[in-house]
Amino acid sequence: MRTTTGYVADSPDSLLQRRPVQRRELRPDDLAVRVDFCGVCHSDLHALHQGSADAFPLVPGHEFVGEVSAVGADVSGFAVGDPVAVGNIVDSCGVCAMCQAGQQNYCEEFPTLTYGGRDRQDGTLTQGGYSREYVVRESFAYHRPTSLDAAGVAPLMCAGVTVWEPLQAWDVGPGTVLGVVGLGGLGHLTVKLAHALGAEVTVFTTSPAKADDARALGADHVVVSTDASAMAEQRGRFGLVIDTVSGPHDLGPYLHCLTLDGTLCSLGHLGPVTVETMHLLGRRRLTSSGSAGHHSTQALLDFCGEHGITADVEVLPSAQVQTALDRLARNDVRYRFALDLSDLD
Amino acid sequence: MRTTTGYVADSPDSLLQRRPVQRRELRPDDLAVRVDFCGVCHSDLHALHQGSADAFPLVPGHEFVGEVSAVGADVSGFAVGDPVAVGNIVDSCGVCAMCQAGQQNYCEEFPTLTYGGRDRQDGTLTQGGYSREYVVRESFAYHRPTSLDAAGVAPLMCAGVTVWEPLQAWDVGPGTVLGVVGLGGLGHLTVKLAHALGAEVTVFTTSPAKADDARALGADHVVVSTDASAMAEQRGRFGLVIDTVSGPHDLGPYLHCLTLDGTLCSLGHLGPVTVETMHLLGRRRLTSSGSAGHHSTQALLDFCGEHGITADVEVLPSAQVQTALDRLARNDVRYRFALDLSDLD
Repeated sequence: MRTTTGYVADSPDSLLQRRPVQRRELRPDDLAVRVDFCGVCHSDLHALHQGSADAFPLVPGHEFVGEVSAVGADVSGFAVGDPVAVGNIVDSCGVCAMCQAGQQNYCEEFPTLTYGGRDRQDGTLTQGGYSREYVVRESFAYHRPTSLDAAGVAPLMCAGVTVWEPLQAWDVGPGTVLGVVGLGGLGHLTVKLAHALGAEVTVFTTSPAKADDARALGADHVVVSTDASAMAEQRGRFGLVIDTVSGPHDLGPYLHCLTLDGTLCSLGHLGPVTVETMHLLGRRRLTSSGSAGHHSTQALLDFCGEHGITADVEVLPSAQVQTALDRLARNDVRYRFALDLSDLD
Repeated sequence: MRTTTGYVADSPDSLLQRRPVQRRELRPDDLAVRVDFCGVCHSDLHALHQGSADAFPLVPGHEFVGEVSAVGADVSGFAVGDPVAVGNIVDSCGVCAMCQAGQQNYCEEFPTLTYGGRDRQDGTLTQGGYSREYVVRESFAYHRPTSLDAAGVAPLMCAGVTVWEPLQAWDVGPGTVLGVVGLGGLGHLTVKLAHALGAEVTVFTTSPAKADDARALGADHVVVSTDASAMAEQRGRFGLVIDTVSGPHDLGPYLHCLTLDGTLCSLGHLGPVTVETMHLLGRRRLTSSGSAGHHSTQALLDFCGEHGITADVEVLPSAQVQTALDRLARNDVRYRFALDLSDLD
């Protein structure tokens, strides 16, 4: 086994403690990654406080960047020193219809998650990127454009790919009238990417104070969703609305904004939703999406490299991980924390 | 005013009574229709027992066929004696985006319903087809193929068009793997039409006894939805599932049957539905649809004429309307009642 240092929670709701973390010795198709920056995702909060007890002891973190520090004997696509990025999936069955279709994120055997998952070979619990080293199969690591600020790339690996797949699946580009609900980690990346793709972007927010920020990120319009008359004017305008709000909320007003055959893609909220069938009339569609497949993940990184897009991050030394989690829990971040793990050396 | 005879309920839950019904004098673009057969739809039950009190006195009936008996001065597409059919919409604004797109059924001012609606010119309450005559704008009447049994055409005008629009919108044909949930009025027409379009059709039913009927209607496979192992085998198979069940029920098992990017179209149930966002992952889509636009309605009648498709109906003299409603309320019909209104003469 290899030993590194990371942040471990022993049980649900317990504090993270800095201590040694074990990694497997490299298999032939494995890379070791020196983790430089790891994003702090809402999923991390969920896993620490509401997730399965089976996932403990838990090292969170599933959007990180760094450099390849060692390679297995069969690795052909990476060399020591290569800039690399890893997201929230580190393995899948590889043979089911979804994997064959390039959608490893929907693997019918369920993909192996970056933390809180079970390694497909030895059954050990996977431990995430709030640590200085990660060991991952080559095929679940991605080439990171060095033109981009590394810390700002980390959130692309979860928040970024999650919004990128629907933007691609619905062919968002010039002519698309797109709505984005919420302006947090997912929302601000949706705005940046959709704007770069050429779409007309409207941000829906409960906070009038966010209007200037939304426009600075690339939004063409901002609608305050508590303003009933402003909402009424949006009726039937949008071919696609991407809803990034993580808490439960009424989807009816956003379904109302869709065109015939329009789609509301709920990305932020994982839980039950109740809608009126009447609001789906007109072949309006409610859907969801999560994470991304191999091809799509690399395509996002390449696109961001070409367009100079990163997440807006606030970088904290990893020793302040608890501060980052506490502030994220009260939405006090624009728009994502990235932990700098160099202080673990 | 013109006077005919029909069946009227004076208030919610009251019995239908045979008595005179007034119709407007023909406007220049109106037809008078001698109503020969009118289908009995679940919506009629709903309107009589759970609908708005503002819709009373109420004459139900919104899928009927007959002959043109008189025409207004400006009518150009119909002549006295023409075989004709009318569905559940008799007017719309004509100028909104939906009407312009040929989707009068989603008119932004709400289409005028065949009964329980308000006439757009004089504000009177519309009264339905459980009567010997109806007066309707030419543009909301349709040419009925005389090769088809008239009674069996009546349910095409509501049940038929409601299932036809999603079949067309999702381009159902050879190569489509289609699921149909429920085998009642809507369901049996979905099976007939999809089979004629060349799709591979699987019927989901709670009643093993319906398997032979389903196959006789054109189903390739029948799955008893209470059989957990049979349901598990359907996972990820269907590009489109059309759910025709009118009561509340769990949609999770049918979302589970969808492919990546597959769609569950709920047609039978109008009310709130709760789904797990997790079940929508994989860009699986929940949608709904209702009724049809002009072009699509005539296209269905033409298609049915070419393929010899009608609804399976049990014809009752209109004097037995209460029997028909009572039996429909307990699902004792295969698959639709049609009232023969000639006994009103």
